[in-house]
Amino acid sequence: MPDLTNRQILLRRRPTGLVLPEDTELVSSPAPEPADGEALVRTTYVGIDAAARTWLNDQPGYLPPVQLGEVIRAAGIGEVVKTRCDAYAVGDVVTTLTGFQEYVIVRDDVFTTPVPGPDVDQLAVMSVYGPTGATAYFGMTGIGRPQPGETVVVSAAGGATGSVAGQIAKIAGARVVGIAGGPEKCRAVVEDFGFDACIDYRAGDLPAALKQHCPRGVDVYFDNVGGPILDAVLGRLAPKARVVLCGVISSYLTGEHPGPANYVNLLSKTALMQGFNALDEWGRFDEAFAALRQWEQQGLLKHRETVYEGIESCVDALNGLFTGANIGKMLVKVGEPG
Amino acid sequence: MPDLTNRQILLRRRPTGLVLPEDTELVSSPAPEPADGEALVRTTYVGIDAAARTWLNDQPGYLPPVQLGEVIRAAGIGEVVKTRCDAYAVGDVVTTLTGFQEYVIVRDDVFTTPVPGPDVDQLAVMSVYGPTGATAYFGMTGIGRPQPGETVVVSAAGGATGSVAGQIAKIAGARVVGIAGGPEKCRAVVEDFGFDACIDYRAGDLPAALKQHCPRGVDVYFDNVGGPILDAVLGRLAPKARVVLCGVISSYLTGEHPGPANYVNLLSKTALMQGFNALDEWGRFDEAFAALRQWEQQGLLKHRETVYEGIESCVDALNGLFTGANIGKMLVKVGEPG
Repeated sequence: MPDLTNRQILLRRRPTGLVLPEDTELVSSPAPEPADGEALVRTTYVGIDAAARTWLNDQPGYLPPVQLGEVIRAAGIGEVVKTRCDAYAVGDVVTTLTGFQEYVIVRDDVFTTPVPGPDVDQLAVMSVYGPTGATAYFGMTGIGRPQPGETVVVSAAGGATGSVAGQIAKIAGARVVGIAGGPEKCRAVVEDFGFDACIDYRAGDLPAALKQHCPRGVDVYFDNVGGPILDAVLGRLAPKARVVLCGVISSYLTGEHPGPANYVNLLSKTALMQGFNALDEWGRFDEAFAALRQWEQQGLLKHRETVYEGIESCVDALNGLFTGANIGKMLVKVGEPG
Repeated sequence: MPDLTNRQILLRRRPTGLVLPEDTELVSSPAPEPADGEALVRTTYVGIDAAARTWLNDQPGYLPPVQLGEVIRAAGIGEVVKTRCDAYAVGDVVTTLTGFQEYVIVRDDVFTTPVPGPDVDQLAVMSVYGPTGATAYFGMTGIGRPQPGETVVVSAAGGATGSVAGQIAKIAGARVVGIAGGPEKCRAVVEDFGFDACIDYRAGDLPAALKQHCPRGVDVYFDNVGGPILDAVLGRLAPKARVVLCGVISSYLTGEHPGPANYVNLLSKTALMQGFNALDEWGRFDEAFAALRQWEQQGLLKHRETVYEGIESCVDALNGLFTGANIGKMLVKVGEPG
């Protein structure tokens, strides 16, 4: 095998708001050689998640901030090209924290998951039966627990996690109403992902639209956005409602989190609001992947992707998450699968 | 038995803020005669709870608003003086929604509980092993679930519910920090109710005080107040924290509920915040009363009362809840027990 060149995007300056060109640098260097117990993975797709933006801020979280000079952290998928460990063979497809780079060293550690078979549909893994799907699965089934006939609302319903979360609620027999920005996304939420309805929050008067679409209140709210949308849905809770806190995308750029005044409905409706992190359910990922894969193969779980091309597109793709550029999972294709 | 005169306080105008003299009227009329299946109770103590103030607003809740011309609703305790039903004998002591009045008709319905023995300590029932204690019990044991060594924070710690909730957490082996207004209350919280510490929120810089008293974060927060105090404690949550929403006394007068911006810590700490209503646990009240009574008799659960005298003091007592006039349960002694 010839020497491999690894192009990487490093953090040079902490961004405020969207990531500017001066905040990052694209560098090239030889791909590292795996040591004993390691393997080298060639990245095929980098997944673009809102969490990646939070890791650029100098604030504590469930993972430490990316330091200046480090590769920008991101979850992705790739193929083993060299191995010096028993866990992986050359050709294995794995999901791991690839970061914004073309090659990455992996160990058999908590963030690396081999996926079923080398001919797996890598897009489906990134969208449905990988970590994104697991996030939707554990949040919806573990906290939301939708029952047949209940009304479930999902924000960022056109996004990767929201689209899967809503479909899981449909499979559970609930009526599912999405919230998304703009008519094109709302159309995709209903036509592609099979939600019963989708509210365009940009069209104004969200409380009135929620009242119209959720006449008996909201039993489960899967929240990816926070801010005024969370507040509006809290204002419409049904008794014994469950609010699943999955993300706060409305505030990731600014760090500002306006408080939801309607939180008091958690008291008057004896409801709960709970945050979660799919990694806490690591021991049950196989269960989640099996269920998600089965639903996908049965045609019950549809996925779409918005795919940018080339490692140099990673920052544009990340910014695009916050400007609403994606329907379904936002990915950057860094290398050819297979 | 001679004819009985029943003095009642009726709602005449919906108050905004504290209840003004013109908002209510003290009227006298003959006490009603029980019909078949009913009994007449002579009120001994009226319990003064913040919920009573919410029922004066024209807004939906778990009970309907008090209508103009109706007796102001409140939970209390009294003794059966006439009976035409099997459920109660003359001399029985019962807790029920007495309202602000000297006599009340009861049926064997969901809001009426006979208490153990005619010589029971009625103050202890109102403070500990009655509905107030049940509220603390179900909130703390059902949602808070404190573990030995955990840090539990209770707001309105000098009040009826908070003082019991904190002592239940102590019995569970937790370290318990109260929040109360003023040095006298803080002293009572530590010396009378046995909390490990108490923060005087009026002394300023609550976040710094929380950091000092809860160096490893707050595992359980039992919230009676909402507003900036809730927000400050949310800013100090430990991983997997449980926030018990019991009341929003900071906003009952105004109807204003500032949103807690630090709710986002529910996500970063994978914590939960849950409202509850003790009435939902009606089927388990006996269990709660038995546990609370045992703890009280073992000397593990102390109680104090602030007692006003006479039916005409009810409105002052209710207003006093919001100006911080009580330590322990706020009661109005309306008739002589025994």
